[in-house]
Amino acid sequence: MRFGRKVGQDAIVASFPRTVEEHRAVVAALLPPMPAEDVPIRQARGRVLAADVVAAVSLPSFDNSAMDGYAVRAADLAGGGAASPVELPVIADIPAGRLDVPPLEPGTAHRIMTGAALPPGADAVVPVEDTDGGIGRVRLTATPAPGAYVRYSGEDVRAGDVVLAAGTVLGPPQIGVAAAVGSVTVAVRRRPTVLVLSTGSELVAQGTALQPGQIYESNGPMLAAAVEDAGGHAELLRFVPDDVEQFLDRLRRRLDAGRVDLVLTSGGVSAGAYEVVKDAFTGRGVEFVKVAMQPGGPQGAGSLAELGGVGVVTLPGNPVSSHVSFEVFVRPALRASFGHPYPDRPVVTATLSERWTSPPGRRQFRRGVLDAVHGTVREVGTPASHLLGALARAECLVIVPEDVTELDPGARVEVLLLEP
Amino acid sequence: MRFGRKVGQDAIVASFPRTVEEHRAVVAALLPPMPAEDVPIRQARGRVLAADVVAAVSLPSFDNSAMDGYAVRAADLAGGGAASPVELPVIADIPAGRLDVPPLEPGTAHRIMTGAALPPGADAVVPVEDTDGGIGRVRLTATPAPGAYVRYSGEDVRAGDVVLAAGTVLGPPQIGVAAAVGSVTVAVRRRPTVLVLSTGSELVAQGTALQPGQIYESNGPMLAAAVEDAGGHAELLRFVPDDVEQFLDRLRRRLDAGRVDLVLTSGGVSAGAYEVVKDAFTGRGVEFVKVAMQPGGPQGAGSLAELGGVGVVTLPGNPVSSHVSFEVFVRPALRASFGHPYPDRPVVTATLSERWTSPPGRRQFRRGVLDAVHGTVREVGTPASHLLGALARAECLVIVPEDVTELDPGARVEVLLLEP
Repeated sequence: MRFGRKVGQDAIVASFPRTVEEHRAVVAALLPPMPAEDVPIRQARGRVLAADVVAAVSLPSFDNSAMDGYAVRAADLAGGGAASPVELPVIADIPAGRLDVPPLEPGTAHRIMTGAALPPGADAVVPVEDTDGGIGRVRLTATPAPGAYVRYSGEDVRAGDVVLAAGTVLGPPQIGVAAAVGSVTVAVRRRPTVLVLSTGSELVAQGTALQPGQIYESNGPMLAAAVEDAGGHAELLRFVPDDVEQFLDRLRRRLDAGRVDLVLTSGGVSAGAYEVVKDAFTGRGVEFVKVAMQPGGPQGAGSLAELGGVGVVTLPGNPVSSHVSFEVFVRPALRASFGHPYPDRPVVTATLSERWTSPPGRRQFRRGVLDAVHGTVREVGTPASHLLGALARAECLVIVPEDVTELDPGARVEVLLLEP
Repeated sequence: MRFGRKVGQDAIVASFPRTVEEHRAVVAALLPPMPAEDVPIRQARGRVLAADVVAAVSLPSFDNSAMDGYAVRAADLAGGGAASPVELPVIADIPAGRLDVPPLEPGTAHRIMTGAALPPGADAVVPVEDTDGGIGRVRLTATPAPGAYVRYSGEDVRAGDVVLAAGTVLGPPQIGVAAAVGSVTVAVRRRPTVLVLSTGSELVAQGTALQPGQIYESNGPMLAAAVEDAGGHAELLRFVPDDVEQFLDRLRRRLDAGRVDLVLTSGGVSAGAYEVVKDAFTGRGVEFVKVAMQPGGPQGAGSLAELGGVGVVTLPGNPVSSHVSFEVFVRPALRASFGHPYPDRPVVTATLSERWTSPPGRRQFRRGVLDAVHGTVREVGTPASHLLGALARAECLVIVPEDVTELDPGARVEVLLLEP
């Protein structure tokens, strides 16, 4: 980092027991690969294939015409051309979809439409533009080579070919090809179900008036949207009571009712005296640690042995901390669990357009906006973790490494791109 | 274009009555701006705001503590520090959410949690780390400045501020801030409803055995997925009878049953003798034209006066033509209709790694794969419009302008990026 001032490694290791990469690995291990499930192709958009799609039929599945025109034997037109057109009797009419295609006798033509099966005996098609368009007899001015305007069976795909490999994300063209080779359903990885829990007696629902000391609960809808944005299925349980027994009971009842792949909480994990998430999960398999990052230092992760071993990630409660730690830890793990080929956000390099200082020993993820024309980035808001208004205007997270304490204008920085 | 050979403009104008840009404008005019609708924030992900979101409350909405610690008067600790800690009686305990916050008397402290309201009379917070953590009395080693670890009301957002402007796409942070300022619902543009029709007697459903001459219907699911991928709502009506009266009757009944913003068909529009889409819509407000592009030359667009003026776009039936023309004409129009700030796919420049020829007078959109490391692009498959297998492996559409007939390796080409 050319313009950065750095500190030694010792100070870092001393103050934070866990690095960003270490905690990423802990979270990733909580979400094993999702099993496969069959879904109708109409519902498969955005899903990731769990198995290859093998063609049940060839594409095209029969020799057919690439044009509207006339099916002929090329040899019958060999002596013709624009100067001396050949005239042939038109024996049959072959629209697309006609099943009883009559063979073509030498010295005759069949009228044929795009996509219709080439009749046995024909080896070329003359486009209607090169004829007089006749019905009973037709004058043809072309001298086609054998194979002209014929699409041969299997020239795109052969029956038995893998048309889509396991791990492919299904966009519109992939759904098209799966449908074209006859797939009714496709085997895709299950979307992980994430139970998003919000708790805290200061939180109230939108639509009620705030009293001083109360805030509108916003991490729940934000994290649920983030789970869905990542490709998971989110279930939101808000206003869970701020009492350990009630909290655990509520969670237990939900887990008994059906599959949950990950429990995601926000808040209740700091050094405070009333931390229901920490109190409920401590000693039950969840480890609470300080991670060497800012925002998002206080993190927790583990699995609840007495609740079927479900994975739990506890994010800090400040909205910005919550969002950044979701991006850094949860999103990649979620996407990897259903086999997404790009679990991570794209990271690019940009030029910082201002002076920054950063605390030693922590990797900072600062909210930034990019100037795409000049390749520069600047901060939106401040590093403070409660500035949700600024977060909503951010286009990226700018990464300041653990050992960098000062950055001058012109410094090259890594930038994690958030989608619009 | 450095390495390209070109032809004159006259040949182009002569053979094709409509340019790509002209047809884009015709299609765009069929989809007026969608009206606004209110949706709950939990369902608003990916939608585009139709109106500004104005903060009902400030963020923070009251002065509060940024740390777990003790609320104090900075003046009371002015003479202290690590060498001579000040000890104060702890009078009250303020967890987050406590509504009856007692004022702070001079010479005392209140224990306070992150996010809890700062008591009247206090002007600073000492983090618990700078104290002995006492309950009845506390020893404080810090000498805070007034304002230390206090988050002031309105420092992020002030009540009445526009926190999200009309036209913003709602991702997780935007949903978070809308929730935080008290929004129950947000006004977003309606998603356009697109009725995707497939017709053609050669088309059969997946799950039935193919007879020679039949193909599996794939444009319907592909285009429905493309509509949804663009942000629209797709309704798929497959296997509509290949008969003008039945076709129109089926369409009329659907339009009577509820709102449709656009009818999208594929196939049935070429020069052939059995073209139900062309036959049904000709003379009813839909114009069928040749557009100077490849694939996707035969296009139709218009609005059906006798069916409530609904807009119609008729795409060609070859799967690749259908996909490419959706990308070029329909996707941008759909996204513009609900106010998306990025209606078009990103276009980048790349270096062609092979030799191409291209017909004069038509803008080609060829399926390509990128080598991101070297910034090069090469073709996947061939320009033939029936190669769906190759389309499904494509990462981009490579654009060859109308007046370019030959491209050498090293030529710089524009590339329209398809999403993974």
